[in-house]
Amino acid sequence: MARKFQTPIIIVNFKTYSEATGQRAVALARKAEKVTNEEGVSIGVAPQFADITTVAKAVDISVFAQHIDPIAPGSYTGHVLAESVKEAGAIGTLINHSERQLKLSDVNEVIRMTRKNGLLSVVCANNPVISAAVATLKPDIIAIEPPELIGTGIPVSKAKPEVVTGTIRLVREVNPKVTILCGAGISSGEDVAAALKLGTKGVLVASGIVKAKDQYSILREFAEATKP
Amino acid sequence: MARKFQTPIIIVNFKTYSEATGQRAVALARKAEKVTNEEGVSIGVAPQFADITTVAKAVDISVFAQHIDPIAPGSYTGHVLAESVKEAGAIGTLINHSERQLKLSDVNEVIRMTRKNGLLSVVCANNPVISAAVATLKPDIIAIEPPELIGTGIPVSKAKPEVVTGTIRLVREVNPKVTILCGAGISSGEDVAAALKLGTKGVLVASGIVKAKDQYSILREFAEATKP
Amino acid sequence: MARKFQTPIIIVNFKTYSEATGQRAVALARKAEKVTNEEGVSIGVAPQFADITTVAKAVDISVFAQHIDPIAPGSYTGHVLAESVKEAGAIGTLINHSERQLKLSDVNEVIRMTRKNGLLSVVCANNPVISAAVATLKPDIIAIEPPELIGTGIPVSKAKPEVVTGTIRLVREVNPKVTILCGAGISSGEDVAAALKLGTKGVLVASGIVKAKDQYSILREFAEATKP
Amino acid sequence: MARKFQTPIIIVNFKTYSEATGQRAVALARKAEKVTNEEGVSIGVAPQFADITTVAKAVDISVFAQHIDPIAPGSYTGHVLAESVKEAGAIGTLINHSERQLKLSDVNEVIRMTRKNGLLSVVCANNPVISAAVATLKPDIIAIEPPELIGTGIPVSKAKPEVVTGTIRLVREVNPKVTILCGAGISSGEDVAAALKLGTKGVLVASGIVKAKDQYSILREFAEATKP
Repeated sequence: MARKFQTPIIIVNFKTYSEATGQRAVALARKAEKVTNEEGVSIGVAPQFADITTVAKAVDISVFAQHIDPIAPGSYTGHVLAESVKEAGAIGTLINHSERQLKLSDVNEVIRMTRKNGLLSVVCANNPVISAAVATLKPDIIAIEPPELIGTGIPVSKAKPEVVTGTIRLVREVNPKVTILCGAGISSGEDVAAALKLGTKGVLVASGIVKAKDQYSILREFAEATKP
Repeated sequence: MARKFQTPIIIVNFKTYSEATGQRAVALARKAEKVTNEEGVSIGVAPQFADITTVAKAVDISVFAQHIDPIAPGSYTGHVLAESVKEAGAIGTLINHSERQLKLSDVNEVIRMTRKNGLLSVVCANNPVISAAVATLKPDIIAIEPPELIGTGIPVSKAKPEVVTGTIRLVREVNPKVTILCGAGISSGEDVAAALKLGTKGVLVASGIVKAKDQYSILREFAEATKP
Repeated sequence: MARKFQTPIIIVNFKTYSEATGQRAVALARKAEKVTNEEGVSIGVAPQFADITTVAKAVDISVFAQHIDPIAPGSYTGHVLAESVKEAGAIGTLINHSERQLKLSDVNEVIRMTRKNGLLSVVCANNPVISAAVATLKPDIIAIEPPELIGTGIPVSKAKPEVVTGTIRLVREVNPKVTILCGAGISSGEDVAAALKLGTKGVLVASGIVKAKDQYSILREFAEATKP
Repeated sequence: MARKFQTPIIIVNFKTYSEATGQRAVALARKAEKVTNEEGVSIGVAPQFADITTVAKAVDISVFAQHIDPIAPGSYTGHVLAESVKEAGAIGTLINHSERQLKLSDVNEVIRMTRKNGLLSVVCANNPVISAAVATLKPDIIAIEPPELIGTGIPVSKAKPEVVTGTIRLVREVNPKVTILCGAGISSGEDVAAALKLGTKGVLVASGIVKAKDQYSILREFAEATKP
């Protein structure tokens, strides 16, 4: 059943980086699979829509879409259908990333669609208050990403630990179950360890891995940092 | 060189119809390829993003994306990159479909990106005046689709022939070269023949083919209707 | 202090109806003021942006904007600034109406801005789950409006009483204080009474008043229905 | 008849600057009126929606809206209706400013609505190619504003004179009549003179006037610079 997953988890968002497009998306996913096997740690990848099929065929780790639209099958040119990314091999999707934000009612509708299609929902939220709002919609996972730290290499777990602990506290008031990940600025094993120590169950990372000179080594560093 | 194409051309927009998602996208593309080979008529297909790779590998006809975003490679989660759909096997893209409209400056930017990446640009326009505006941006192809006729089975070539002839006239005043296609409501060979008789070089069709009981037969009917 | 208000409250959304534009906006606001004075019941009006000043000068009842943007003063052409509608005489604003929905993070940002500017926040929500999400953001008022009933004359309080009671229950789990209004399809005193009986503190109404043949009489009917 | 206007014209976009909100919008409009009377030069002002009525009552110069929506009167909460800004006293509207861009089909629809309501259309365009596209839609005025220069104090007329001359050339190929204004970075009389010398008929200016220490003096400097 697709909506199960194991924590701690590291989800690598490939964005539209050239270092993670097409053949290079497959290559990066293979490194993630290698580290998963070597370290026994759960690593997921979120490639571009057009790469989901190829990546999902090439590796045996969790593949996520980066976004889906709040639509059912039908007359919607240029939209992203839950059923389509699922058949392509995705087991879940990012939702409401700060670079692809949704209207409130669409966040709810998309979560509903992931549920209907047996997909994992990973909803991004900017701050503790918004995380709590999202938590009431009962997604599987919330990733807290202060947009001002995205791509900076300054990890939220260090720069603003109170954002992480505040999020956990507010979220738990309304939802005792949802898994909380830490995003934005994570670029070393130390950052990952800090994020877990604050009480999260993993990280959502992009440039920290994708743009690294040695993607494999840094993936390994991340994976090792998730171990007790 | 990708930006060449042969007219008349029939482009089938798969939208997010379940009849044209995943395996069924490949199946429909295969029928289009069969008719292309049997009739010697150019047929292109525009599957969903996640199906581009599989479809492009399965068939030897033109594959289009349904949309691309006005972005260069970089930090854009959930967006559609020209470079990505190209590497996946698309030779062009629909732009500004009435179900996925763009800001004016983005229409221009996306056309510029198709040019840079050697992709064909097929810009949709609602009416003659908008078609002329688009024509000044020098895309490869303009598809005229009055949104009120989309999915109705009422072909613009019959219901509003003056829309088609008016478009051609206005477009030619500012752009003597762009190829003009006819969209919206095309559902029979007769509609296709009418569209060509009015001076267009082909059709953009969706439900007329995708939702047909016998997709192969109707594709054949379309293809035959394009012959003199 | 602007952020106080009295319940029960009837808020009339003028939308962009011609019956409530310009001089006719002032005329309707005057009827609302007359009924307020005659019945001792709180009635607020939400005219178009360009009518806020004139309406606020003409009457001594609560005036709301229909929307504000999540911006501070600055370089934002064509946007709606909290400070501007406040200086024009608004004491609050509708937020996230189903005809003007906001991204989740913007709902939060706009609520924050109303607080900063001493404006009342009236956030619209489509259903119980979304109402609960909104409630975590601590607005002053939530108006529950199933979009499928807007403008139908079918009141949510009758057609879907469980939507109203379900909303109240879910909202109270996360926010014991926020005022809850009932919207969509309210067109008679009976509907208003039903809404209050279900536990809401008033109604948000548009066509039911604005499009009524006799706006004054129906306003009076509404006002009387709010009394015990 | 509202759609007549005199060139050269200086249009001052008040944006959502605090220096041009509420009472300060009226004060700035009065300075513009004073200079208009003293210099005999046409100056228009574009205040925020909520200030249109007050400004239009206070002064006898042209008042523009900063944006209108592509809608007819009806059920559109939080939208800006052509009929509303007209009744409030606007004689025209900015359209598609780079801070409030519209879909291509909406640019066309809004221009159509200004025509229907006897309002002047001032469409903003980013570059020569987009200006030409806009010109085919036959607005009254096109204002060319490279977004990268907005608010910089670097005038397009000096930094990129070829953008201005290129725009004029491309626009004239498709529309011999439309009035062309120069925007972005205009901050001195010298910039205004340069813009006119390149062949434009006036300027669209914002921070150069609104944020000036002495708004009156700089308005006068602008006005004088428009004289032969």
